[in-house]
Amino acid sequence: MKRFSLLQTDLYQLTMAYGYWKSKRSDWEAVFHLFFRSNPFGGQYSIACGLADAIEYLNGFQFEENELSYLSTLTGNDGEVLFEEAFIDYLRNLKFECDVDAIEEGTVVFPHEPLMRIKGPILQCQILETALLNIINFQTLIATKASRVVQATQGEPVLEFGLRRAQAMDGALSASRAAYIGGCSATSNVYAGMKYGIPVKGTHAHSWIMSFDDEEEAFQAYADAMPNNCVFLVDTYNTVEGVKKAISVGCKLGEQGKQMVGIRLDSGDLAELSIQARKLLDDAGFSDAVIVASNDLEEEAIAALKAKGAKIGVWGVGTKLVTAYDQPALGGVYKLGAIRGTDGAWQYRIKLSEQVIKVSNPGIQQVRRFKQGEHLVGDMIYNVEHSIDESLEIRPLDGNSGSMQISPDWDSQDLLKPIFEKGKQVYKIPAIGVV
Amino acid sequence: MKRFSLLQTDLYQLTMAYGYWKSKRSDWEAVFHLFFRSNPFGGQYSIACGLADAIEYLNGFQFEENELSYLSTLTGNDGEVLFEEAFIDYLRNLKFECDVDAIEEGTVVFPHEPLMRIKGPILQCQILETALLNIINFQTLIATKASRVVQATQGEPVLEFGLRRAQAMDGALSASRAAYIGGCSATSNVYAGMKYGIPVKGTHAHSWIMSFDDEEEAFQAYADAMPNNCVFLVDTYNTVEGVKKAISVGCKLGEQGKQMVGIRLDSGDLAELSIQARKLLDDAGFSDAVIVASNDLEEEAIAALKAKGAKIGVWGVGTKLVTAYDQPALGGVYKLGAIRGTDGAWQYRIKLSEQVIKVSNPGIQQVRRFKQGEHLVGDMIYNVEHSIDESLEIRPLDGNSGSMQISPDWDSQDLLKPIFEKGKQVYKIPAIGVV
Repeated sequence: MKRFSLLQTDLYQLTMAYGYWKSKRSDWEAVFHLFFRSNPFGGQYSIACGLADAIEYLNGFQFEENELSYLSTLTGNDGEVLFEEAFIDYLRNLKFECDVDAIEEGTVVFPHEPLMRIKGPILQCQILETALLNIINFQTLIATKASRVVQATQGEPVLEFGLRRAQAMDGALSASRAAYIGGCSATSNVYAGMKYGIPVKGTHAHSWIMSFDDEEEAFQAYADAMPNNCVFLVDTYNTVEGVKKAISVGCKLGEQGKQMVGIRLDSGDLAELSIQARKLLDDAGFSDAVIVASNDLEEEAIAALKAKGAKIGVWGVGTKLVTAYDQPALGGVYKLGAIRGTDGAWQYRIKLSEQVIKVSNPGIQQVRRFKQGEHLVGDMIYNVEHSIDESLEIRPLDGNSGSMQISPDWDSQDLLKPIFEKGKQVYKIPAIGVV
Repeated sequence: MKRFSLLQTDLYQLTMAYGYWKSKRSDWEAVFHLFFRSNPFGGQYSIACGLADAIEYLNGFQFEENELSYLSTLTGNDGEVLFEEAFIDYLRNLKFECDVDAIEEGTVVFPHEPLMRIKGPILQCQILETALLNIINFQTLIATKASRVVQATQGEPVLEFGLRRAQAMDGALSASRAAYIGGCSATSNVYAGMKYGIPVKGTHAHSWIMSFDDEEEAFQAYADAMPNNCVFLVDTYNTVEGVKKAISVGCKLGEQGKQMVGIRLDSGDLAELSIQARKLLDDAGFSDAVIVASNDLEEEAIAALKAKGAKIGVWGVGTKLVTAYDQPALGGVYKLGAIRGTDGAWQYRIKLSEQVIKVSNPGIQQVRRFKQGEHLVGDMIYNVEHSIDESLEIRPLDGNSGSMQISPDWDSQDLLKPIFEKGKQVYKIPAIGVV
């Protein structure tokens, strides 16, 4: 199976494509913007993510023969085929020709800013909509969640442990990468480690302990097997007793010139247990041993544990991170901003709605970010066909509701960068991992 | 990319595998059970799902050379490799030898019942844990959600529209399949249609309308292109006006001997608008035209719309279904129940916890379902090494807290069916779609 297929789209994209083709509008040039309308998690910012996969998807823009055969079988309410053969041929020969501009991964972004702008034949733009939304929505959501979790730990390492509860394998893989871009330090997902160069972490589970008759015997057997990777999980039976046994095995490791990395807590009152464990470890001379904690952690639980004085040095975060548990979808949309037929003049387009937040911005948009030194001052969403007049006002990022005039002292840059020009990739994806 | 890889696991499964190998326990026989501890969504039941993908994953049980090379590069806290070369060789030659029993997809299941039982060399059982949990957790969650949504529509067709907001591409694909197993009638995801034979549905979006100067012109152009698939989306500018224009185009379709399938509402007060639209359609002679509704629907919103008398005949459900928005993860676990070394006697295993719900059941489990005619009476989780004594009591499924004795009048069957025997698939996956 290919990772991405052009059939990973909603059927209506293809029936519309057929409509454009039948009405001889396939090559009308359109501009679509991909944006979200509000920050997730009730937060004040988001982190753009997903561009690398979007590029992989766009580079595979080609219908396969089995896909075309399948499309030929689809029928309408009269039992006749939906797509005539000449259209299937048209799809067979379709070559990607769009210009794609996007905001780079890891960039702080805000509602209504286009994360991606697609300009090209309307038929092509339309087919892409669903997959681009799927990719950018989810990865932006997870990068944002990871950033919030890392803010909560005040920079202490966060390990992403979510594979077993993620939404399918690719949900896990994409989440591991997005979480790393959002600030996590490592993942438990070995495949993500191999594919992206993300550091991988892991030692043992309860089942290791349970497969032995005795907990200390289990720690010792693990230490004998892998003395350079010892984080002992201490809560299989009784956490405090588990810490004491880990210390006993840690002492033996020390006698062999090896070092116990630490212990892991996975249940119970993590604040209280970490304080007790820290004292036991320190008293035994293991002040460098780290306490890793896991068990349904997210940013609020982490902040509460820190407020209680928890002595946790490394945070294992799984389910609540990789599924973005408290808001598992970002409502990004992909809206037509402008179109032109063969006569060449752009016509701007707006979608109206009784829900004001659903009204779209017309035009061909770009985002300009203004900075004063390292301080972000504000972003402007503007129409590239209009010059930026310095008398314009911009909305401030600092949360107050006033507006400011652009100052000549500010630095500025456009956030949407060229990714594809006429269907050819012109952007090099930065490596994210340890490569 | 393969859809599944043995590296789609937590690193600790491989470090434990190494530990079993180093301590000469790789071939100790173990029994693991995969189960969840409480029904999702505050519900009273779940729908088992994911077995087909689990089988695909297990049939691909083979480490690839690039994966083994990657594992050779991993290092511990002393900078030395984690895995010695002889272990990498051991993994290279590993053949799947486990017995796997599972509850069939689409079966109603309850907490603590093993959905899957894996019996075999502990090293192999351990490597499988993470991927099996990922697959079964997510698909069971979505099949359950779909079942709840279809209950809310009282059997009216539910179309799954979630691809653009799903958690990655495979999250969408797995969700489309699980939703169909849970009772949905069709999907918008064309790839899922091709791969699984699920019916696909879709017509056009707002962008189709916006690409024309006039809404009625857009409907007409769509009807001209694809007269056998006309569900007009009527809310781009003003819903009631949109319905009138759809009717106008529907009349012209009728003159050509074609039939308008219906209209779609995607914003606003769906109850009120559907009542108005129904009247307009009926008055114009379109009593067979269906009203499709979408916009953040889930079981509670659907029940509320039905309570308000909404005239909706087909329900498009996306984000809230495919992400299981109100509970985006099922907390399924995989616990050791029994182990035996080379001496051959099973030793039962239990995980204790300060949280009672986290205590696991020991033994080698099977689930027996008792029925009286078509009526489910109760399920029994029992240890296959103990005979079922008819004096045993079972917990009732009807929600009252009493217990019952097994009656000789009841029919019964074991829900865990053989899927793999000694690593060979012995189960044929039933086709789910229209094939």
